[in-house]
This record gives sequence, C-alpha cells and structure tokens, in this order.
Amino acid sequence: MRAMLPLSLALLLASGQTPAQTKPEDVIRYRKAQYTVLLWNWMPLNAMVRDRIPFDAAEFTRRAERIATVPPQLLEGFAEGSGEGAPTDARPEIWKDFADFTAKMKDLERETAALAKIARGGDEAAMRAQFAKTGQACKACHDKYKAE
Amino acid sequence: MRAMLPLSLALLLASGQTPAQTKPEDVIRYRKAQYTVLLWNWMPLNAMVRDRIPFDAAEFTRRAERIATVPPQLLEGFAEGSGEGAPTDARPEIWKDFADFTAKMKDLERETAALAKIARGGDEAAMRAQFAKTGQACKACHDKYKAE
Repeated sequence: MRAMLPLSLALLLASGQTPAQTKPEDVIRYRKAQYTVLLWNWMPLNAMVRDRIPFDAAEFTRRAERIATVPPQLLEGFAEGSGEGAPTDARPEIWKDFADFTAKMKDLERETAALAKIARGGDEAAMRAQFAKTGQACKACHDKYKAE
Repeated sequence: MRAMLPLSLALLLASGQTPAQTKPEDVIRYRKAQYTVLLWNWMPLNAMVRDRIPFDAAEFTRRAERIATVPPQLLEGFAEGSGEGAPTDARPEIWKDFADFTAKMKDLERETAALAKIARGGDEAAMRAQFAKTGQACKACHDKYKAE
C-alpha cells in the first residue's frame, strides 16, 4: 500500500484532483480543516434548531451558505493514498467503495445546497426540516465511513 | 487576561460574532482550518504563476473562487480571548490594534474577490498580476501579525 503511494499521488496530480506535490498528511490535514469549518458553522444552526439560542433566520442563512461551499471541496480531501499518514477517523472502506462514498458526498452536496436555498426563502419550518434532512446525509456517511 | 475570557466570549456571543459556547482553543482550531483551506487552494496558483505546472485558467478560476470565500470568514477566527489556549502564530498585537488588523483583513477580502473576478475574465497576464497583488495583501498582515 505504502509503496504505491507515489504513483497514486502522481495519477491524482495528472488528473488535477489535488495540488502539486501533495503528501498524504497534507491531504488529511486539508480534509480535517474542511470538516472543522463545516462544523463551526453547523453548531449555531444546531443550537437554533434545538432552541438553545434564539432562531435567527439571517444568521441561519449566512452559515448555511458557508456550509454549502464545503461539500464540493471535500472529495479532493480523500485522495487515494490518504488513508494513512496522519491520525484520521476516515475508515479504509472509503477507498474500497469510492463510488458509494462519492455518491454519499454528492447527497451531502445536494442537501447543503438545498439548506442554503431554503434558508434564503426564510420559511423557518422548512429550514428546520431541511436541517434535519442535511443531518441525515452527514450521518449516512459517518455511520459507514467514520471511525467511532 | 485569562480571567476575562468568559466575559469576552459572552460579549462575542451576544454580538453574534462566534457560535455559542466557543472555547478559545476551538476558535484557534477554526482559524487554522480556514488558513489550511486557503493555502491548499493557493499553492496550485503559486505553482502555475511560477511556471512549475502548466497554467490552467479554469483550474485557476475554480481555486480563486474558493480562496475568495475564506477572508469574509476569517475575522470570527480572531475572537477576543483567542490569543492563547492552543499553539498559535497569531501575535498579541492583533488584539492591541484590532482596527488595523481588520483593515488588513478587508484588504485581503477585496484582493481575493478581485482575483476570482479577474480569473473569470480569463486574461492570463491580469490573473498573474492580481495573484501578486493578493500575495502582497497576505504578506502585509503576516509581516505585522504572524509569528515567525
């Protein structure tokens, strides 16, 4: 596996999927960073939906729009060969069925885009419902591909 | 300083600047994540501009647009009280002259927005020139506010 890394990364490079001279540990750092940004913006929505802080439609929308920018950037954080090289919760199953993993990521992309769009519409009940649906897309992937 | 943290964070919370129950180490992790995302997308542009990889206008534009989403999200990564709590290169001077720091961040926001806009225009020479100008905005802030 490790012996194949340089070639895998060379292929990724040629495909334009990841920046030049990318080391596995840098790919892992990158994907963790994207999830940190996602979670940072997700937590206030979670607090609103659970009525721990007042519901603020403008703030909800601002953060939903930021959230929606992340999923289209996530797949390159799972470049082949980045299953090891630094501590990671990403399970090896990701690269065993990358088509399924990709499909789940596309689900998340679609749901987060819908969350931002619905938020701009300003219907609080619809925003709450789409928040739940988006959370299910997160969970579907975590259940299968994220270590406990 | 440390004794003032809870109050500072409470005020930030009330201002809506940062998510609920934010600890300084979480703010630091968040801002580092944003810079990681920024740098991930910046490096391929750097490689193109320095002719280390072929110039690809579409790829340049895609990454410039991602870069432009970061600066508007960065200031909340420098919430008062987040000068310590985890390893950080952020110098204490940031919070001594936050108005100047904010102005420099707005410069970066303007230059990265211009980079994305110019990239969409497709003029390679203009893209290279704006890349340099954006780099200067990075450097202006690093010189003053980032530890070596």
